[in-house]
Amino acid sequence: MTKLDQKKISNLTKKIECGDRWALSQAITFSESTRVDHREYTKNILTNLKKYSGKSLKIGLTGAPGVGKSTFIESFGLELIKTGKKVAVLAIDPSSSNSGGSILGDKTRMEFLSREANAFIRPSPNDGTLGGVGKRTREAISLCEAAGYEIIIVETVGVGQSESTVSEITDVFCLLIAPAAGDELQGVKRGIMELSDLILINKADGALLQLAKLTSSDYKNAINLFRHREYDPPNFPKVFTISSKENLGITAVWNEIEILIKWRQTKGFFSELRNRQKISTFKRELKNYFEQTIGSSDPILTQIKMFEKKITSNEITPETAAELLIQKIFVSD
Amino acid sequence: MTKLDQKKISNLTKKIECGDRWALSQAITFSESTRVDHREYTKNILTNLKKYSGKSLKIGLTGAPGVGKSTFIESFGLELIKTGKKVAVLAIDPSSSNSGGSILGDKTRMEFLSREANAFIRPSPNDGTLGGVGKRTREAISLCEAAGYEIIIVETVGVGQSESTVSEITDVFCLLIAPAAGDELQGVKRGIMELSDLILINKADGALLQLAKLTSSDYKNAINLFRHREYDPPNFPKVFTISSKENLGITAVWNEIEILIKWRQTKGFFSELRNRQKISTFKRELKNYFEQTIGSSDPILTQIKMFEKKITSNEITPETAAELLIQKIFVSD
Repeated sequence: MTKLDQKKISNLTKKIECGDRWALSQAITFSESTRVDHREYTKNILTNLKKYSGKSLKIGLTGAPGVGKSTFIESFGLELIKTGKKVAVLAIDPSSSNSGGSILGDKTRMEFLSREANAFIRPSPNDGTLGGVGKRTREAISLCEAAGYEIIIVETVGVGQSESTVSEITDVFCLLIAPAAGDELQGVKRGIMELSDLILINKADGALLQLAKLTSSDYKNAINLFRHREYDPPNFPKVFTISSKENLGITAVWNEIEILIKWRQTKGFFSELRNRQKISTFKRELKNYFEQTIGSSDPILTQIKMFEKKITSNEITPETAAELLIQKIFVSD
Repeated sequence: MTKLDQKKISNLTKKIECGDRWALSQAITFSESTRVDHREYTKNILTNLKKYSGKSLKIGLTGAPGVGKSTFIESFGLELIKTGKKVAVLAIDPSSSNSGGSILGDKTRMEFLSREANAFIRPSPNDGTLGGVGKRTREAISLCEAAGYEIIIVETVGVGQSESTVSEITDVFCLLIAPAAGDELQGVKRGIMELSDLILINKADGALLQLAKLTSSDYKNAINLFRHREYDPPNFPKVFTISSKENLGITAVWNEIEILIKWRQTKGFFSELRNRQKISTFKRELKNYFEQTIGSSDPILTQIKMFEKKITSNEITPETAAELLIQKIFVSD
């Protein structure tokens, strides 16, 4: 790195530590870039800011399109800010590998929250960067932590594997649900419910109030069938109704999160869960680096080409080819 | 393999070739098993039946819960059977790694189709087997092809990565949509639309007819914004309304599929697309075998344990650990 680069990095680092939002944005942009120099910047910035890592409470939020995630975050975020907290919102959009993003894109979101001096909102519309959504979001989290954000909300639409990615990088996981008739329960995968600490039935107001209550008891019944998780207090995961629009139950969400977190901290589960997350990240990154490595090794690429010819001429199945190539790679050590 | 095993395999092979549905079921059950002897059976059966591979037309179908996939397959399948075809239906349920499956499970599905002598319906409720959903379904497809099924419908609920997995193993990909107001369009990811050859707006009957027509024109507009795919005739992908319940437009679905397939065959794209699919399968299986291999190599497992200790004591980030371990594995060759 040049001297100019070093100065740039050191300036950016200082500004982030002072909570400068422009500098924070800039650093996140570097972390999302695939350019070699930007990766280098990011590595250095993150090393400089290492001491702040792990200082925030990370809250994951998922839910299908239309359940009101943005409205909820707006109410919830404003509530937290009232209590003196600094709140960052990172939105993950698990876009397609072809082009990415939903058709209509986002409307103006979280209008009031975005005006707050103690709020920082950052959408991450692009996928397919080095290391995937998980790595990029973890880096953004570290940067927000250094900038003094105490609560970091990581939002994702319930599509693809993004829920499990988000639950892997957050301390508390909330599932937001819209009121719906009993049949719809089957649309929410058991796996996502099992990741959840809080299941919030939103839109419990006006004409939907009764339906919201019914939905809530449906989910309570479903949750009761699950095995109790050893890292949960007896009455968790919790299911209850809220109205983001009318600001009902929003304080309760924060209260329940505090109860949960304190319990886990007392019992030692809080750091244990964070350690488990790190280990599964490690396992996943192993696969990512494996891919990168075979994609940049000439002898392996030659082998791959050879196998591809055999596959398309039906001499060998894709599975057998994969098995043989892996054997070749590992036998040599 | 023992002599008894060999006889068993040879009997099963013959019965499958004769179209025996019990034998076909049995072989699919073996292919889904992780038991070493069952894997061995499967390998042998598939080798015996290799010559039938690629003989069927594979149609992928996806759609959110509640759009009427089962009802559509029932109407569509009965229609195909009327024209003298043998139809197999393989249903993929991308279940959670924790427990799997939707909460309510399936009701009795495809009641009439399942009574037909020329139909074979097989749900695959479990995930997490050797090689994942893709491999298991490809094996089931090969077995159905050997049993003489000319049309194989692979159904998946639009959750997780299952759509791309299904589009990777089928020749034609259909997206089933329920009539809905314009805003809902954002719930369907652009990536899934881009995988689709036909977008079918279902439930175009009774009170929903008008909404179905509106939804159809919404999707037509959306599709028009996409880049034309070189392997499509000029007016594809197609969007149109159908009613599975009243059996309207179901024949049109098959007509359009025939037009598409014939065009691709004439232009050489049909086999080119199959080759591309095989190559991406190969790439994905490479990752699967890599995982299996590092999970069963003692020296690598020792390294992994060592790195895990460093990760939980915050000496090293999960990403750096992954990078270092991959370097160690590959440097030694």
